[in-house]
Amino acid sequence: MPAIGKTRWAIPEGYIPSESISQHRALLSHETACILNAGERDAKIRLSVFFADREPVHYRVSVPARRTLHLRFNDLKDPEPVPLDTDYASVFESDVPIVVQHTRLDSRRAEIALLSTVAYGED
Amino acid sequence: MPAIGKTRWAIPEGYIPSESISQHRALLSHETACILNAGERDAKIRLSVFFADREPVHYRVSVPARRTLHLRFNDLKDPEPVPLDTDYASVFESDVPIVVQHTRLDSRRAEIALLSTVAYGED
Amino acid sequence: MPAIGKTRWAIPEGYIPSESISQHRALLSHETACILNAGERDAKIRLSVFFADREPVHYRVSVPARRTLHLRFNDLKDPEPVPLDTDYASVFESDVPIVVQHTRLDSRRAEIALLSTVAYGED
Amino acid sequence: MPAIGKTRWAIPEGYIPSESISQHRALLSHETACILNAGERDAKIRLSVFFADREPVHYRVSVPARRTLHLRFNDLKDPEPVPLDTDYASVFESDVPIVVQHTRLDSRRAEIALLSTVAYGED
Repeated sequence: MPAIGKTRWAIPEGYIPSESISQHRALLSHETACILNAGERDAKIRLSVFFADREPVHYRVSVPARRTLHLRFNDLKDPEPVPLDTDYASVFESDVPIVVQHTRLDSRRAEIALLSTVAYGED
Repeated sequence: MPAIGKTRWAIPEGYIPSESISQHRALLSHETACILNAGERDAKIRLSVFFADREPVHYRVSVPARRTLHLRFNDLKDPEPVPLDTDYASVFESDVPIVVQHTRLDSRRAEIALLSTVAYGED
Repeated sequence: MPAIGKTRWAIPEGYIPSESISQHRALLSHETACILNAGERDAKIRLSVFFADREPVHYRVSVPARRTLHLRFNDLKDPEPVPLDTDYASVFESDVPIVVQHTRLDSRRAEIALLSTVAYGED
Repeated sequence: MPAIGKTRWAIPEGYIPSESISQHRALLSHETACILNAGERDAKIRLSVFFADREPVHYRVSVPARRTLHLRFNDLKDPEPVPLDTDYASVFESDVPIVVQHTRLDSRRAEIALLSTVAYGED
């Protein structure tokens, strides 16, 4: 399949609640960037996390050709974890076209709440 | 009405929970791709489902002229059902312009949670 | 302010649940198309509602200059109400640029669920 | 990083419920415009709030270079607070490219509900 998407994506909203009713991974409060690389070349991505009051932090992510990666911000460790209960934003810069969608599952209360949106993309 | 939309659409997020409090079809946990074909020609669509660790699977879908189809991924059977509790993504390739919106109803808990976003479209 | 937006908008997802825990208008299950006309000319809009198995139905809506209208599909009466518990989709055609966002409040259960997305726009 | 985004953004949906189960700031019903300024120049933004039946009200907001601001509409005071339980819409006009995402947390009931969408952007 020919590649689909854009090479730069932005998600202005980011917030990982520290509270969760459940400790089961599927129901733990989390923020996800779902990345689709539908094309025939592996994607090398620089992920930058922005904050309200300090300089951005950069991460490296890769997604093989014809694969999707549902990346949890909670799982980022290197160079540092994303702080909890803190407003952030993110930008993805890829060497091939990708598509990015933002999803949060919030389980601070007994019931879960969900939000999702396709990110803002441009080349 | 002249056609509206794009011929290629991507939804990076996909996940069908196996759990549901209710077995009533309207309240069963499900993922939907709402497809609108507002134009005057029937749409023949190839739907490709992408995974984290294996090759994509392809399906065929059609939407008549001036009709909408709210397609549940749960209902896809041929060549194989979409696995539950598994991250996936999807791409729609149509021979005429369409518009695609992604919605999930999650009823793993007693109350439902909803998410929705217009997919990423391009020609 | 110069006008902002597009003249054609599509919302592939539409579904008004017949059930509601609450009969209070703010908490009644409803589907809304939020329309913003930020420009200096009144907007005359043709709204077409599409179904899975019958021809579309057309409505007329107007939004004054520099105003927003949060239109509930539940409130449409002429030429006919939008049926409950039925999949539909919608297209907005305006004579001036507008912006359209889709929101649903679902109160079939004791707690509410929300979804929202900016619609698909083009000229 | 080169700037990413657009200079004009619209959010047709806006509504701040007056009710909240919790008075804790994180769980108080609120509407947020998450603004990302990924570029190297500070952003000066004019925010216009539109209503159903009166003239728009204008606010001033700024976001430093390489920072994100998660702006709560509830916090706007000058020239006047945004009224509760009232339909509104908003437009952001920036002197440099930004990206805007709209999020609402609704805690009128015991459990929270969330919605989010990237706003409509153009230059």
